[in-house]
Amino acid sequence: MNQSKPVLHVVKIGGNVIDNPKALADFLRLFASLEGPKVLIHGGGKIATQLAKDMGIESKMIDGRRVTDEASLRIVTMVYAGWINKSIVATLQAEGCTSLGLSGPDGGIVRAKKRNPIPIDYGFVGDIENVNGNALAQLIETGYAPIFAPITADASGQLLNTNADTMAQAIAIALSEYYQVQLIYCFEKAGVLHDPNNDESVIPSINASYFEELKANGIVSAGMIPKLENALKAISKGVHLVRLCLADHLLNEDLGTKILP
Amino acid sequence: MNQSKPVLHVVKIGGNVIDNPKALADFLRLFASLEGPKVLIHGGGKIATQLAKDMGIESKMIDGRRVTDEASLRIVTMVYAGWINKSIVATLQAEGCTSLGLSGPDGGIVRAKKRNPIPIDYGFVGDIENVNGNALAQLIETGYAPIFAPITADASGQLLNTNADTMAQAIAIALSEYYQVQLIYCFEKAGVLHDPNNDESVIPSINASYFEELKANGIVSAGMIPKLENALKAISKGVHLVRLCLADHLLNEDLGTKILP
Repeated sequence: MNQSKPVLHVVKIGGNVIDNPKALADFLRLFASLEGPKVLIHGGGKIATQLAKDMGIESKMIDGRRVTDEASLRIVTMVYAGWINKSIVATLQAEGCTSLGLSGPDGGIVRAKKRNPIPIDYGFVGDIENVNGNALAQLIETGYAPIFAPITADASGQLLNTNADTMAQAIAIALSEYYQVQLIYCFEKAGVLHDPNNDESVIPSINASYFEELKANGIVSAGMIPKLENALKAISKGVHLVRLCLADHLLNEDLGTKILP
Repeated sequence: MNQSKPVLHVVKIGGNVIDNPKALADFLRLFASLEGPKVLIHGGGKIATQLAKDMGIESKMIDGRRVTDEASLRIVTMVYAGWINKSIVATLQAEGCTSLGLSGPDGGIVRAKKRNPIPIDYGFVGDIENVNGNALAQLIETGYAPIFAPITADASGQLLNTNADTMAQAIAIALSEYYQVQLIYCFEKAGVLHDPNNDESVIPSINASYFEELKANGIVSAGMIPKLENALKAISKGVHLVRLCLADHLLNEDLGTKILP
């Protein structure tokens, strides 16, 4: 690892924070105050589900993952890349943070491929094929904080819905060639918890073998499993530090759960 | 005028073209093939009105201008900055045109101010105060074609709905410091027509005094008046060439209506 690379933060902010205007405003103030180069990836929250409901379109889920038909793709693109992304950028600009709201197709920075419909057809869901770290680093060096919505496109121009945790992981890995990257998954929990009902039970650090143990014991389950898989992949592929923490603890480097190689 | 500045095209594409998938695809192919640095500003079309209807929200208009209440602001931001902007960018990327989908708040490039509610309260409508031509030129020099949705923000981070023709004019003027700018308003007509029912009746050129005559005679009216006011302002403030033409005629420099100082 080249310790002379500049430090860069890649921050993912979860949907539950986005759904709470006060929590989001507090978080964006913290993000704006974070020193040095930085990237934000935001999730979607319940706004897309609510909009679909308002339009009389039912959100279909399989194993906690949204099935993205054509109507849903339009909704998530509108909500994530439109309303949420531009609201975040406008707020950050007002906080003095020069930010650029992007999605995968912008500049061809994140290119994806439609997920194989076999065995389960998730519809217009994209798995990331490539992140153009060089183009992204150039925007960052110009002085922008890129703010990504989890919408991508394939080489033919088809828009695709993409998991925001995975997008954060892929962006963090691609930028590790240019920076000492700290990847921080901010959400509504104090970290990975031993006991989901006890916020004091934060597990201070997790490595790959401990993760297997936690899975086997049922201590981590559901949505936490893919999140930790993303975190472990990042740390194994050159990201310097990975942490999962409460959105309020973005600046407190010692809090939350650290992911170890 | 400094003839040594590089030529740059600022193209505005109107809502009627956006509403027609075939016309839009044809236009984007032409735009992608336009040589040299370029910027696209797109309008919204009827998708926003349709979405509002689907959601049971009524679109309120005064004198052909949309009144933007909070629900409408969310809809236009979702549709213009989300769905239309990212669909256009993904298509252009697939056509080999490296483009960056932006709105006013991105990088603080287009800053607006909420329009005075007196005498008519248009709601969350923004009048452009400033375009950061230097920041925009830097993105263009990096190799990006910026694609703007007509959504802006004020200094406090409030998102605002902004007229796309005016945004094109303001961007063209700001870039005239760095480029020899050709501003092209592409729409569904062959130009400004003497007789609205006869596509052969294109007026080849219009200057400020002829515009007054055309207005007095009722030959131009309604939506064409603010469009021509924007075109005349651009030519009076340093834009090298201004043309209004059919979207299909983007590359045919001799077709359409030229605006003269």
